[in-house]
Amino acid sequence: MKRILIARSAGFCFGVKRAISIANETAGKAEGGTAETAALPIHSLGPLIHNPQTVEELEKKGVRVVESVDDIPCGKVIVRSHGITRRDGEALAAKGVKIIDATCPFVKKAQEHARSLSREGYAVIVVGDANHPEVKSIISYIGGGVPILTSLSDLRDASGIRKAGIVAQTTQSFENLMEFVSVALKIIPEVRVYNTICHATVLRQKESVAVAREADVMVVLGGYNSANTRRLAEICREFNPRTRHIETAAELSPEVLTGVSCVGVTAGASTPEWIIEELVGRIRSIWKEEKIQVAYYQ
Amino acid sequence: MKRILIARSAGFCFGVKRAISIANETAGKAEGGTAETAALPIHSLGPLIHNPQTVEELEKKGVRVVESVDDIPCGKVIVRSHGITRRDGEALAAKGVKIIDATCPFVKKAQEHARSLSREGYAVIVVGDANHPEVKSIISYIGGGVPILTSLSDLRDASGIRKAGIVAQTTQSFENLMEFVSVALKIIPEVRVYNTICHATVLRQKESVAVAREADVMVVLGGYNSANTRRLAEICREFNPRTRHIETAAELSPEVLTGVSCVGVTAGASTPEWIIEELVGRIRSIWKEEKIQVAYYQ
Repeated sequence: MKRILIARSAGFCFGVKRAISIANETAGKAEGGTAETAALPIHSLGPLIHNPQTVEELEKKGVRVVESVDDIPCGKVIVRSHGITRRDGEALAAKGVKIIDATCPFVKKAQEHARSLSREGYAVIVVGDANHPEVKSIISYIGGGVPILTSLSDLRDASGIRKAGIVAQTTQSFENLMEFVSVALKIIPEVRVYNTICHATVLRQKESVAVAREADVMVVLGGYNSANTRRLAEICREFNPRTRHIETAAELSPEVLTGVSCVGVTAGASTPEWIIEELVGRIRSIWKEEKIQVAYYQ
Repeated sequence: MKRILIARSAGFCFGVKRAISIANETAGKAEGGTAETAALPIHSLGPLIHNPQTVEELEKKGVRVVESVDDIPCGKVIVRSHGITRRDGEALAAKGVKIIDATCPFVKKAQEHARSLSREGYAVIVVGDANHPEVKSIISYIGGGVPILTSLSDLRDASGIRKAGIVAQTTQSFENLMEFVSVALKIIPEVRVYNTICHATVLRQKESVAVAREADVMVVLGGYNSANTRRLAEICREFNPRTRHIETAAELSPEVLTGVSCVGVTAGASTPEWIIEELVGRIRSIWKEEKIQVAYYQ
């Protein structure tokens, strides 16, 4: 019997679910509100989550995606789960824009640790993609006067640092965090590490690897612009070279399933459940077999 | 040409050199002092260093090794480089015994970090051999009310700890420290690490491995009761299965050198230079060849 094996923790994480429900609530209030509040435009600074399909749905409900603070003259702004930089927050507040904060609580924690470390005079090492909005938001909370390091090469070149604190982008892999810790401990006498990696990420990666090992073909669902989905695909590929990263079910070409008896499925933190369901439907329609077992790995 | 390749950092470290010079100075003062001060017995609480030959020399100068604080009714006591427990220090002070502190400054630092971590409410993880006097002395500085963990299994069983600090016995390997850090970071949100591993130890291990890789036979010199020497032998054995841990040159049997063209030599932190020189002499006498190159690896 052919099998579809799905990682139980695939898809939306706590922070994303929370951000979407805050966005829906805000849009709902606008619809049902007074003429005055309904007229206030609702913005999202950058796409609310890295999933075009979900963003489109929210747009239909009146949530406009803008790229910069300059594009928000008034109204409301939903701060997405990645958070925003301190400077953007201040600029919005100065304009009188109402901020609806959907920053993931785990990201908030990383921001707070970064801030308090710098206040105590620690150099701050941020393990993550320096261009990712989450990392930018974390960095923006680091006070002046302490070194900020975001890459292993920065770290290796650093000298004279007596104490450093490490925080991680919530979707980083534990191995990557440990590499930074190891390099830091070789050159810095005191290293204070906050493991800010979100447990959901760790669990998702672990389950996905287990699924990838068992499957003939591994499908990773999620936005191409989603860092955590891309990382998930990378990790799965290490254990299963037949790993495909796609955004929607329609992208799965039937040839991929030729001779395959077990398809593994996982999805990034910003992939809604219905996209996973669509993929299962598509695999069923390609296989056209009566008996297909759909199992969850946990 | 046959070769003897010696790790440059083999032998006495800074802390041991310092302790021996303090002991010699104390013994010298007694010899040249007044009748009254000369009469005061000089004790060492445990052998001053883990090298029987050096301890014997000091005994000739009047430094008596005792096993317990109870064996010191009066006089002076030299605290060896490993340090002593806080309780022993207090008991000696209460008796009016004059304490001559030769605790290695690096061990002192580890004691201080352990103390300040516990004061700030951190659980304290001590990476090291729980039965080693140095580790016992470090642990004795941890204030009550916080968990103390000294093994990986303790750590894996720990639950509910929100923040922990890690210090290491100064002669631990970096890999061992990192294993503790890695396990801790999986279960404890904040981990504050003081890399208290002595640089001399790291350097000695690194150079010894390089020598072991190149040599046909590797000789590790040092007291059988010296933890750092035993660890050095272990590490060398990983890279050269023909590794021998001996205490003195006389123990090297000629058969070990059969067919050997390069002998590697290293020595623990408590091995005096003359023992290394004796070994070189013994290898020369076994080889009986005119041309032997003695090189230092650095």
